[in-house]
Amino acid sequence: MTGPRYPDLIAALPETVPFVGPEVQERARGALFKARLGANESVFGPSPFAIAAIQDEAAEVWKYADPSHLDLKGALAAKMACAPENILIGEGIDGLLGYLVRLLVAPGDAVVTSDGAYPTFNYHVNGYGGVLHKIPYAGDHENLGGLIEKAAEVDAKLIYLANPDNPMGSWHSGAAIEAALETLPDGCVLALDEAYIEFAPEGTAPRIDPEDDRVVRLRTFSKAYGMAGARIGYAISAAPVIRAFDKIRNHFGMNRMALAGALAALQDTEWLEEVLRLTEDARGEIARIAEANGLTTLPSATNFVAVDCGRDGDFARAVLAGLIDRGVFVRMPFVAPQDRCIRISAGQSEDLAVLEETLPAALAAARETVSA
Amino acid sequence: MTGPRYPDLIAALPETVPFVGPEVQERARGALFKARLGANESVFGPSPFAIAAIQDEAAEVWKYADPSHLDLKGALAAKMACAPENILIGEGIDGLLGYLVRLLVAPGDAVVTSDGAYPTFNYHVNGYGGVLHKIPYAGDHENLGGLIEKAAEVDAKLIYLANPDNPMGSWHSGAAIEAALETLPDGCVLALDEAYIEFAPEGTAPRIDPEDDRVVRLRTFSKAYGMAGARIGYAISAAPVIRAFDKIRNHFGMNRMALAGALAALQDTEWLEEVLRLTEDARGEIARIAEANGLTTLPSATNFVAVDCGRDGDFARAVLAGLIDRGVFVRMPFVAPQDRCIRISAGQSEDLAVLEETLPAALAAARETVSA
Repeated sequence: MTGPRYPDLIAALPETVPFVGPEVQERARGALFKARLGANESVFGPSPFAIAAIQDEAAEVWKYADPSHLDLKGALAAKMACAPENILIGEGIDGLLGYLVRLLVAPGDAVVTSDGAYPTFNYHVNGYGGVLHKIPYAGDHENLGGLIEKAAEVDAKLIYLANPDNPMGSWHSGAAIEAALETLPDGCVLALDEAYIEFAPEGTAPRIDPEDDRVVRLRTFSKAYGMAGARIGYAISAAPVIRAFDKIRNHFGMNRMALAGALAALQDTEWLEEVLRLTEDARGEIARIAEANGLTTLPSATNFVAVDCGRDGDFARAVLAGLIDRGVFVRMPFVAPQDRCIRISAGQSEDLAVLEETLPAALAAARETVSA
Repeated sequence: MTGPRYPDLIAALPETVPFVGPEVQERARGALFKARLGANESVFGPSPFAIAAIQDEAAEVWKYADPSHLDLKGALAAKMACAPENILIGEGIDGLLGYLVRLLVAPGDAVVTSDGAYPTFNYHVNGYGGVLHKIPYAGDHENLGGLIEKAAEVDAKLIYLANPDNPMGSWHSGAAIEAALETLPDGCVLALDEAYIEFAPEGTAPRIDPEDDRVVRLRTFSKAYGMAGARIGYAISAAPVIRAFDKIRNHFGMNRMALAGALAALQDTEWLEEVLRLTEDARGEIARIAEANGLTTLPSATNFVAVDCGRDGDFARAVLAGLIDRGVFVRMPFVAPQDRCIRISAGQSEDLAVLEETLPAALAAARETVSA
């Protein structure tokens, strides 16, 4: 009996997961987290209209969703000043990145990303047999010029760039990205992950012709729109690129409550403004708590703050473990020297009160266990 | 400017979709359908407890779902008399089939299915470069022996079998499938699609050891549980096979309302019984309407009925077009001689009243336009 015969590519893949969910950690701890500040979810929730739309749609759940997603595409096209043909709806940016990598990357093809950037992108590239080239951050920013130079050097088919960046919260100006695009090697596509763009200062989103087939712009309802659990995001690119996704996407993959909720969320600009205000306040509060504990924070154009623990990765990992032990779900960068930081999502006042209460003990414990 | 460089496999794929959704047809017609009987959705809807669970979960949508799906896996394991490690939750059977094909099929690998069986499976096999071998139906049943013989002949890595079958509604006994499994070639996996199993007579589900790594059993909440729009299904197989999916699946792909709804739906066995009763009544009513119009129907172990229009595919296609013109959304088999039938999903009384009203005219129009 040979059992299932996996292709070599699949057989060689590790059984790892890009992220362990907080629920698994809660089971391991035997206790629920007191504050959920690790996944850059929006603790402020979605628009009440989005919640109502989801609830109204529940009774319609016996029907498959419209696989052409025309209603939501129309609303997004109006918002993005493009045509519905420039828009693809998918199962969050995670799902869209999977499709995009599959669309462009054959085994052995070169792909460029930042060392320490979004691991789910790397997961997809590895999963399709691509060869990842990683460029270190430059001063806690993704190295725009370095990414493009490397892409030219290795003849990459795809570059991944998050702007603003996760996990550091840093950002490039739209103008800088527009200038970098001018130097993009011929035949290379830029995957521009704008998951956090709503939180960023005016001018952070580059102006890109939606018919430019060198860029696939990725956005989501998971962050500022507060719908991470709905799994809905969208891509914007030239119509022929968007049509190419139709060759491989799961046409009936979208949940109809997600589509209904997103449509309602998009229209509630007042709620979005309120979330941006609350997030800014929370970032300030995280900075205040960090400073009160002798730590510094990095500027952030996102809904999280990278808190510099002031020593190396081992120390920051100990601080992180101390917070998790004390009921605070947080995460941190994977790669040095960014791993001197822990990453804390914007929380409600009560979440940040838990942080304020637990951080001193977590720091003290880390100082005791990690030799300087 | 070369633009995006698609791998040969992707460049060669057609931009087709496995199914056109009824919403796109409604836009083309300029009118809504009066009866939605084409996608084998459960018009009776999900359990009221499932609707309530979805509505309750809406306020929690800001959180990503638990990517380990342990709550639902636990409940399914209890129902299926297996371990949670034998279960994979995914984005409907469509999504699970995509993962399964990716897991097993490299370009050039042989795969066997029935000619006229589920096109979304074929879509995935083509999308990963597999070579499809199609076996004709035998007497409107999938040809169990023929599928296995062909798999041995072409050294297939994967066989697709739906039991009960879609689009014909026919079925094999569980004992026949157990016997066929004894002859499955070494190294070949059977994808056993049991989307409609809840509607089938006792004894249709084969007894299969969940640790048998030759079978991946696929089930869904889209049919009897009335949650097609939630996109949630599950696979059952040996733990090492289930773990292999962790190498490639979209770990954060599930919608949390879908998970909550499925958990509630699973517990409401009374509702399931009621849906099965209503579905049986609707099948009887479809048969009555067909007979009153001089047509016959095929026995069905599903929530739909294949109505034999008594002539060839062109005639059945004309009847189908006539029904669609008159506001009844229906579909039909793609391949002769099964395409002499149209496929009508179980409807509410008011849906079937629309069918009764429109079928005579659709038949008359088809008789006028299609020469005998």
